[in-house]
Amino acid sequence: MPRLISSIDEMKKIALEMRNAGKTIGFVPTMGYLHEGHLSLIKRARSENDIVIVSIFVNPIQFGINEDYDVYPRDIDRDLALCDGAAVDYVFQPTVKEMYPTGYQSYVEVTEITNKLCGASRPGHFKGVTTVVSKLFNITMAQRAYFGWKDAQQVMVIQRMVKDLNMNIEIIPCPILREADGLAMSSRNVNLTAEDRRSALVLSKSLFRAREMAANANSNPKELIAYIKDMITMEPSLTIDYVEAVNLDTLQDATDLKGRVLIALAVKVGKVRLIDNMIIGEM
Amino acid sequence: MPRLISSIDEMKKIALEMRNAGKTIGFVPTMGYLHEGHLSLIKRARSENDIVIVSIFVNPIQFGINEDYDVYPRDIDRDLALCDGAAVDYVFQPTVKEMYPTGYQSYVEVTEITNKLCGASRPGHFKGVTTVVSKLFNITMAQRAYFGWKDAQQVMVIQRMVKDLNMNIEIIPCPILREADGLAMSSRNVNLTAEDRRSALVLSKSLFRAREMAANANSNPKELIAYIKDMITMEPSLTIDYVEAVNLDTLQDATDLKGRVLIALAVKVGKVRLIDNMIIGEM
Repeated sequence: MPRLISSIDEMKKIALEMRNAGKTIGFVPTMGYLHEGHLSLIKRARSENDIVIVSIFVNPIQFGINEDYDVYPRDIDRDLALCDGAAVDYVFQPTVKEMYPTGYQSYVEVTEITNKLCGASRPGHFKGVTTVVSKLFNITMAQRAYFGWKDAQQVMVIQRMVKDLNMNIEIIPCPILREADGLAMSSRNVNLTAEDRRSALVLSKSLFRAREMAANANSNPKELIAYIKDMITMEPSLTIDYVEAVNLDTLQDATDLKGRVLIALAVKVGKVRLIDNMIIGEM
Repeated sequence: MPRLISSIDEMKKIALEMRNAGKTIGFVPTMGYLHEGHLSLIKRARSENDIVIVSIFVNPIQFGINEDYDVYPRDIDRDLALCDGAAVDYVFQPTVKEMYPTGYQSYVEVTEITNKLCGASRPGHFKGVTTVVSKLFNITMAQRAYFGWKDAQQVMVIQRMVKDLNMNIEIIPCPILREADGLAMSSRNVNLTAEDRRSALVLSKSLFRAREMAANANSNPKELIAYIKDMITMEPSLTIDYVEAVNLDTLQDATDLKGRVLIALAVKVGKVRLIDNMIIGEM
């Protein structure tokens, strides 16, 4: 079984010992309720580092007031068993009080690229993400951290933060994992009703179809977005938050399909907000 | 002579080699134009670490639009000679472009305790300070950083940032150094006219007198502030920015003189804004 740590000081002490012993630390930050997507990050971390630390922390400051912090799925026993199976060394699971004690008042923020996509519909979300990720990087002292491409904007924002603030860690983005029918894996999927689970399939289906359409030399971002929106709108239980095509490096609106273009969407499926995306162009 | 480094990558490479060799790194961040105050920090760093890095960087993002960024004194040759005399190993002097390249957009911020004192009169100042200090901590990979108590609020803000964000560095505050006549040492003192230099003496004199008054059991913060303001107001070339008495731990207004109370002031002396402070109570 991995060792379960809840104290920041204890996690730091262990990390420092490992670093002083010349060991490399790979870190996988999660909000728990692990699925195959997380396990693919852990597997990659396991293959590239001496020590693997997984954090499990549902970070309250990255949730808005009316978002799903309270109903975000949690199951530490199941998570520990999965980490055990994946040969994780340490699971770091601090309390909210441990991470944000009384008097807490420091934040890390990336400004421009957080104004688009999820940043636009979830004000303060990325400030919560960059703050907690900065703290976890410092606590785990990792040389490498692994993030899933499902949260594409999150990857971009964290890479920007690491570069701008000269942090001593390498960010390793890993591919989206999907269920057999195409739905992007997410801890939130468990909160879907059976019917909504079926309706949600249109997200990945329309993205895959858009990628095929993009192979046509005459296609353009506007057309792809319109197609995806039409497909989603046909499902009555789905409400579009956004569907956008942006340049992957700048997150600015893509005017054509040259270079790497990210088509990203966020859709409310019943009560559950899901995101998915597709990268078009060379990787 | 210390080795002069201007590239972030080179400084990081050296720091990593030192850390991997098990050496301790002491770091003294400065804006250059070094004086005895800086040298006292360097001396302390020298005595406590294997390697001493001094940074010299006049950080544009901590200056307001109408502040003295352009006229802040600079003399790298003199600084290098002083660092040589103090047995500094590395002087890190990046360009503004190196620290804030095109597309830069990440910031570190401490919110509550930056609303008082200098934070109130210099909006954005401390955000610039915490951002550059975070960058420099990452670049130098230091275990200890040395700051002067003259910038008392800066010390408090940085300590808060380090604690909140779980940074792996120890902040070591060092006493204010004063000229023979009591004026707190500051790089900005060189910009004072001879007459303003004489007028500026009232700052330290009134603070020392206030500390004597505080020994009287009946004295209170209001009385001390009023006394200092009266003394300063008598000098025609002086304009008060603030004179305040705050609890040293919270930076909230002190209602009595129990515990550690910080009396801090900022005064425009001619065209030069000077700060000084005095801690009353047990250290």
